[in-house]
Amino acid sequence: MTVKERITALRATFKQNKIKAFIIPSTDPHMSEYVAPHWEARKWISGFTGSAGTVVITENEAGLWTDSRYFLQAAEQLQGTDIELYKEKIAGTPTIADFLKSKLIAGDTVGIDGQVFSVIEARTLQEELSTYGILLKTIADPFDSIWKDRPLIPQNPVFIHELQYAGKTTAEKISAIREQYEQLDNRKETAILVSALDEIAWTLNLRGNDVHCSPLFISYLFITKSEVHLFIMPEKIPETVKIYLEEAGVQLHGYQEIIPFLQQLNNIKVLLNPSQTNYATLNAISAECDIEEILSPIALLKAIKNEVEINNLHHAMVKDGVVMVKFLKWLDQDANIHHETEMSIEHKLHALRAAQPNFFGESFDTIVGYGAHGAIIHYKATPETDMVLEPKGFLLLDSGAQYFEGTTDITRTIPLGALTQEEKEDYTLILKGHIDLAMAVFPERTRGNQLDILARQHILKRHMNYLHGTGHGIGSFLNTHEGPHSIRMEDNPVTLQAGMVVTDEPGVYKAGSHGTRTENILLIVPSGEGMFGNYLKFETITLCPIDKRPIIKELLSEEEINWLNLYHQRVYDLLAPQLDYDERYWLANATAPL
Amino acid sequence: MTVKERITALRATFKQNKIKAFIIPSTDPHMSEYVAPHWEARKWISGFTGSAGTVVITENEAGLWTDSRYFLQAAEQLQGTDIELYKEKIAGTPTIADFLKSKLIAGDTVGIDGQVFSVIEARTLQEELSTYGILLKTIADPFDSIWKDRPLIPQNPVFIHELQYAGKTTAEKISAIREQYEQLDNRKETAILVSALDEIAWTLNLRGNDVHCSPLFISYLFITKSEVHLFIMPEKIPETVKIYLEEAGVQLHGYQEIIPFLQQLNNIKVLLNPSQTNYATLNAISAECDIEEILSPIALLKAIKNEVEINNLHHAMVKDGVVMVKFLKWLDQDANIHHETEMSIEHKLHALRAAQPNFFGESFDTIVGYGAHGAIIHYKATPETDMVLEPKGFLLLDSGAQYFEGTTDITRTIPLGALTQEEKEDYTLILKGHIDLAMAVFPERTRGNQLDILARQHILKRHMNYLHGTGHGIGSFLNTHEGPHSIRMEDNPVTLQAGMVVTDEPGVYKAGSHGTRTENILLIVPSGEGMFGNYLKFETITLCPIDKRPIIKELLSEEEINWLNLYHQRVYDLLAPQLDYDERYWLANATAPL
Repeated sequence: MTVKERITALRATFKQNKIKAFIIPSTDPHMSEYVAPHWEARKWISGFTGSAGTVVITENEAGLWTDSRYFLQAAEQLQGTDIELYKEKIAGTPTIADFLKSKLIAGDTVGIDGQVFSVIEARTLQEELSTYGILLKTIADPFDSIWKDRPLIPQNPVFIHELQYAGKTTAEKISAIREQYEQLDNRKETAILVSALDEIAWTLNLRGNDVHCSPLFISYLFITKSEVHLFIMPEKIPETVKIYLEEAGVQLHGYQEIIPFLQQLNNIKVLLNPSQTNYATLNAISAECDIEEILSPIALLKAIKNEVEINNLHHAMVKDGVVMVKFLKWLDQDANIHHETEMSIEHKLHALRAAQPNFFGESFDTIVGYGAHGAIIHYKATPETDMVLEPKGFLLLDSGAQYFEGTTDITRTIPLGALTQEEKEDYTLILKGHIDLAMAVFPERTRGNQLDILARQHILKRHMNYLHGTGHGIGSFLNTHEGPHSIRMEDNPVTLQAGMVVTDEPGVYKAGSHGTRTENILLIVPSGEGMFGNYLKFETITLCPIDKRPIIKELLSEEEINWLNLYHQRVYDLLAPQLDYDERYWLANATAPL
Repeated sequence: MTVKERITALRATFKQNKIKAFIIPSTDPHMSEYVAPHWEARKWISGFTGSAGTVVITENEAGLWTDSRYFLQAAEQLQGTDIELYKEKIAGTPTIADFLKSKLIAGDTVGIDGQVFSVIEARTLQEELSTYGILLKTIADPFDSIWKDRPLIPQNPVFIHELQYAGKTTAEKISAIREQYEQLDNRKETAILVSALDEIAWTLNLRGNDVHCSPLFISYLFITKSEVHLFIMPEKIPETVKIYLEEAGVQLHGYQEIIPFLQQLNNIKVLLNPSQTNYATLNAISAECDIEEILSPIALLKAIKNEVEINNLHHAMVKDGVVMVKFLKWLDQDANIHHETEMSIEHKLHALRAAQPNFFGESFDTIVGYGAHGAIIHYKATPETDMVLEPKGFLLLDSGAQYFEGTTDITRTIPLGALTQEEKEDYTLILKGHIDLAMAVFPERTRGNQLDILARQHILKRHMNYLHGTGHGIGSFLNTHEGPHSIRMEDNPVTLQAGMVVTDEPGVYKAGSHGTRTENILLIVPSGEGMFGNYLKFETITLCPIDKRPIIKELLSEEEINWLNLYHQRVYDLLAPQLDYDERYWLANATAPL
């Protein structure tokens, strides 16, 4: 089927559903960052393969809304499809609601599949459309009938994430969750509906393989005062897991049974996070129930790592540090640069990681951006874009792994030869910001947005900035990006707490020229008592040399130089025992004092 | 009348009002920071003279809630009154709602005078009490009948703040206000109720003398699409002002007529800020009207200074700088320290300021804190506490003036002789923070809480902090503390914009030992275009040397030393022409490069 034929097939369903338009977003019923192929309907209907975008189909027109990362790619992939490209955040681009208003009339109805819209998204859209008198209606997923070779919902087996890694039993975690929400209200029996896949995996100490780069499994969880219900396709539960869940008192239901289950609930209060819960499940909850919209208590419990998780994470950091040193040494001394490309680099790095024990996979798509590609923040080399390296400029390398012991995420900017003064300055100013944030000490109850400026202050003085966050949380053998805390310019009320991990990754990107970013993972640890209470600080746990060659030493303060030298000393001390003589020799140089 | 007799007289009104308790806060109907004596009922009923505190009287008990600044003073002043002291934010202290719950029973009623509670305060109290089944009722001000020598509502004459200072006419300002709120909603005629005295004074280009340290006049303002209504005691309007207001199309009403006026409104939408509007006026608004609670559009218009205001402010800064240099030179060279006290210093400084043209008064109560008194953040020397100076330690001096050209606010920490290493370190680290904030460059749409850490970062590394904000806005010949922006740890969604002024005043306070704070006023100015848009920076507009003697130079970075030297050069260049030979000579030394 061509894209045109697919759109025609979709339009043929409009009449029976009594709709004049249909909207297809890029998410799944769990609002996942990576989406299983079953839910890639937007890709199927449009041919556009980017990770972000929304397609709107009316009876006579079709449009794709996507962001600046994908303008070029989308324009190419939409050729010959009759789908028009709408460039988000560009002056003059109508919003989807504006577009629908101009194409429909008051009284018309727009359809969505409520499973792939969060409560917040559906509600916002409904409010926008209602000001024009346009109605929003949830209909059954229309792709089941028209997408003939639609991939199945993933059916990969679930496995146990052992206590030696998880640190706390499912029983302990469920008690902690109940304790959190029992504090909210005692007047009515309260239960929580959990839709976020990483929260379910964390709670049950189970992992899966349904989602790209994340060890997750497609399911819903419902925790009442005395019961735990897991909704998952039974094929995915091996016998050992079945026994494990029985012992933990978890009742099993089919994945699709979540809807009738919610419809039959008696008079209780259901807690849910409206950003993580899809609109169809919200609407399924029996009218007898109260619904309270909350930030999930699991997000915070999960973000504060326990001692066992922290110890394991340190092991993961040593493994990943060894991988990186082997790779950097190879690139520096053994590789013939002229024979290497961005994709060959990616394969080399993958092979080194895959050789590590307990390696499960990459934690996100590796970014290998050479030269101008380093300025494309979510660049992924493809056969069409793949570039042969040369002995000059920067290679920006952002990568990470899923080990049973933990999830890693590291960025290094590597000089392949001669650098311009501008490249050196950008590199050094970004490193300054990275170090200043890493050195911060702050009182308890500090939010990430209060610290963000420490990483940006030096580039801001030269009127440079980056539009991504400075830091995100990371799961324990879970999602690479996890909340609820962050270090960003934007407000986030969640405070930074001991036991949380967060990345430190300022960058500068100059389109057509180069990009530089330096990223380590920081663990938040107590710094001691002081005026008005307790203080916290960061411990850098990523172990990998930061290239000294691009540094303009005069731009660093003495305190920053000391930090770098001490960090490098620790990198050497912790990695050297795992390396052979040549690698140790290389590392000794790479970590020698500046 | 003794305090006991006063409380008995108040209790005698309970029966006719059908209340079991009455709450007396420290505010006026305009939620002013400084309160005219007429509204000092809390002081009258309790004998406690501190600026912050709330008295609660039940049929058999009485309590005063106040914060840590006033624990000692309140304990002394409450002796023999039967009023119990409740120390706020101390473990075990009940809230006022908790206290009332323990003394009253469900169905009982608590009275307040709705004029001296903001909408937010009254609503919060009502919600807290309602969970215990206790009712809240607004009653007429009971002090009119029992407080025999109650001071009158201030009747001081209003005067015109000339266009040469204000920069924009009242007509222009009213247009700008209407433009702001007309954007909000066009479907219903909209009006704004203005209760904040500084917003009224700014809008009408009028000033008064009703409130301590602030050139304000007691009034309400109501702006509709086509009309402007001012509610003020007619005695306060001289003939010239009357003509001025007539020409500006402002209709005059008596101050108390605000209530019947609001009761008779027809079907319009009334905008008001629930933090600045008293509960009695809210309740007076006709039920036919819609009420929309907003942040006042005037606050933001007022905060962004126009060119005329900025030019005048520079003049005010030169005047105040001359005052400070004369004072500092006198203290350094001419005064006999052993004959001076905190209060004599205050008088000396007042005399110097009063000699400046267009001086209207202090902009707040001068803080002269010697030695351990410097650690008391809102210290005000009294005959009982006044301390004779000695040639050692720090004198913390925080003061400011109201000039027609603008409002000033400056803090210097002055060494009177030998200092301890700790005093020098604290001084230097606070100065570092002050300079780092002053040097910041930041993109448009940055909020103050994002920059706050720049001023704190160095003391936090030694586990020190201060619990006040780092910076507040300042009026143009108006309130010393004005919003809506700020630089604080706490969230504030208002962004920093070119034309705003903000203080930069980090400090460290060590009880029983010393305090140090350095405060300048910063003007936000464009820094130029750059990546992703425009950038802003600070221009320090306060002109006064920062004492170099306590500085430990090795703790400052080269960039910080350069900032200080350049700042001092500017201070000298701009002040020297206004000084005599001896003062210039002293200033040349005080501003010589570090």
